[in-house]
Amino acid sequence: MNGREASSTGGTGEARRAGAAGGAQRAGGAGRPDSVGARMVTEVATGRPDETAGQALSALGDPARLWDTLTYVFVLDEGSRPLGLVTIERLFNVPPETTLAKIMRRDFIALTPDEDQEEAALSAIREELDAIPVIDAEGRLIGAVDHDDILDILHEEHAEDILRQAGIQAAPGLRPIMEAGARELILRRLPWILVGLAGGMVATEIVGRFERALEAQLALAFFIPVIVYMSDAVATQTETILIRGMSLGRIEPWRYLAREIGVAFALAVASSILLAAFALLRFLSPTVAFIVGFALFVSMFAAVFVAFAIPSILAGLGKDPAYGSGPFATIISDVISILVYFAVAWATLFR
Amino acid sequence: MNGREASSTGGTGEARRAGAAGGAQRAGGAGRPDSVGARMVTEVATGRPDETAGQALSALGDPARLWDTLTYVFVLDEGSRPLGLVTIERLFNVPPETTLAKIMRRDFIALTPDEDQEEAALSAIREELDAIPVIDAEGRLIGAVDHDDILDILHEEHAEDILRQAGIQAAPGLRPIMEAGARELILRRLPWILVGLAGGMVATEIVGRFERALEAQLALAFFIPVIVYMSDAVATQTETILIRGMSLGRIEPWRYLAREIGVAFALAVASSILLAAFALLRFLSPTVAFIVGFALFVSMFAAVFVAFAIPSILAGLGKDPAYGSGPFATIISDVISILVYFAVAWATLFR
Repeated sequence: MNGREASSTGGTGEARRAGAAGGAQRAGGAGRPDSVGARMVTEVATGRPDETAGQALSALGDPARLWDTLTYVFVLDEGSRPLGLVTIERLFNVPPETTLAKIMRRDFIALTPDEDQEEAALSAIREELDAIPVIDAEGRLIGAVDHDDILDILHEEHAEDILRQAGIQAAPGLRPIMEAGARELILRRLPWILVGLAGGMVATEIVGRFERALEAQLALAFFIPVIVYMSDAVATQTETILIRGMSLGRIEPWRYLAREIGVAFALAVASSILLAAFALLRFLSPTVAFIVGFALFVSMFAAVFVAFAIPSILAGLGKDPAYGSGPFATIISDVISILVYFAVAWATLFR
Repeated sequence: MNGREASSTGGTGEARRAGAAGGAQRAGGAGRPDSVGARMVTEVATGRPDETAGQALSALGDPARLWDTLTYVFVLDEGSRPLGLVTIERLFNVPPETTLAKIMRRDFIALTPDEDQEEAALSAIREELDAIPVIDAEGRLIGAVDHDDILDILHEEHAEDILRQAGIQAAPGLRPIMEAGARELILRRLPWILVGLAGGMVATEIVGRFERALEAQLALAFFIPVIVYMSDAVATQTETILIRGMSLGRIEPWRYLAREIGVAFALAVASSILLAAFALLRFLSPTVAFIVGFALFVSMFAAVFVAFAIPSILAGLGKDPAYGSGPFATIISDVISILVYFAVAWATLFR
């Protein structure tokens, strides 16, 4: 076993460890703070495929080394490229004469330092890896992202997702948001409040354009909240499953769309019949009942396509599809459902 | 070092491992599938405080043991109660004659098997633990939840949170939802769609009761979507921060409420002035502008209290505050903002 293939930066001994959070050495100057490089530790254990478990274990005792992580011993080829991973438990569990080649896990992925840290967390879940090997442009092992960092990254990214979905801007994580002053919170929350206000003004304009329809049937105004709410509810459901699935790479968008069309059809039919029946019984107007039922059906159905389109377009543009949930998607979906509602009303009343 | 304090169930040797997912032994029959007991592994390494690192390491080589996890060596007292944790890296990094008492981490928490698995993930994050010791009623170590399970639990709980927030019922996790058939998805999504529909009918009734106000000022109908949307937007922001903070135990609710009142005031004032100005310029009616501006202010402010109250009441009842986000909170907030809007309109027009 020879651990020196993994380059080690930043001094040696206790001084190195003292300078690093949690006792582990971070590779300094490795680009963006949310990159794999910024999360990587470099004092990792390595071995050769023909080495035995016993040899590997005694090499771990080398007093000159201060390990950042022993989650895996990384088995490398002649060119320091990773061939496989052996967990520390496995090293102790097998007879000492077993070679690493026999016990190493060969299916794994490696990341480069410039990749996004979220990729490390998602890879760990997808591939069931406890630590992620990090390689340079030539494929040589230079470090690893260990399980404690993977857990932190996953937690941070999740908090970010949830805060973003609630329209809290550029949140640096949950803890800073908890501890932020009122002024900072206002600045982080105001942008989406203003975007929402602008969207709301557009909605006001649209309803205003259909003043004649409202004058003809004032009861149509009563149903604005339910039409908007229902379209939004079904869109949020569609979008949430799609975005989470895309971020895990676990979804075939077109197959998902096909299933979703069937689901939306069923939910829209059920809701429309119930709402039309309510409108008929409550206002005794078949016209209002028809408009409300038909508009709800079209608008719930349309909402599903919008919910599908926004994250797909974002992904196509190379952006994070997660921006397709939250306040922006809600405004678009609200405006479209109001447009559908009054277009149906107009066509029914004045055609 | 004597690892036998940690009770081991379910046979020995390769047969044990073969029967368990991922090569690690789960404690069978340990209550609910989402309990700590169901996630715990039992073949964990233990030691005594006066043992040396060298002794501990050679005990790990015992060919009779097949370790489930070596993330920590758990240091136990005479009664098998955990005193401290030593990471495997630390065992290799210190001189072999160092005693475990000198290098063990003494601040840690332990869970019992009947606790919720989510507690293990949250404790790992809060306490920066890589594995969570599990103890019986007498405080004796019986196993541990290891980092790979902690990561899986965190990921599952995140997916559950996000799906629940979107109104997808009793989701068993993200993967099953991705792979579910259309029929199952309809059944999981329909309940919240129906609750939403019922809420929407209540909203219809409320707007209907204020028919006279709408007849007097039809322009009030144009602003229904923006009033509802804005109250909802600010409530979602408040609620998201509160619920995430509560689940991490990182928030003092009353201090948070005080800050939130200041933030909501600022956001509501800014939004109300802008919307009133828009209403005045667009419809040239000071009455409409006053109603819209004042109602938006009151309703955004009220929304913050509702957003604060729902999770707090749930927590007070011993329920997960996370149920206070998503479709249920949205409906309540929508109905209240419509009520506020038309109450302000009524008082202004007919007082």
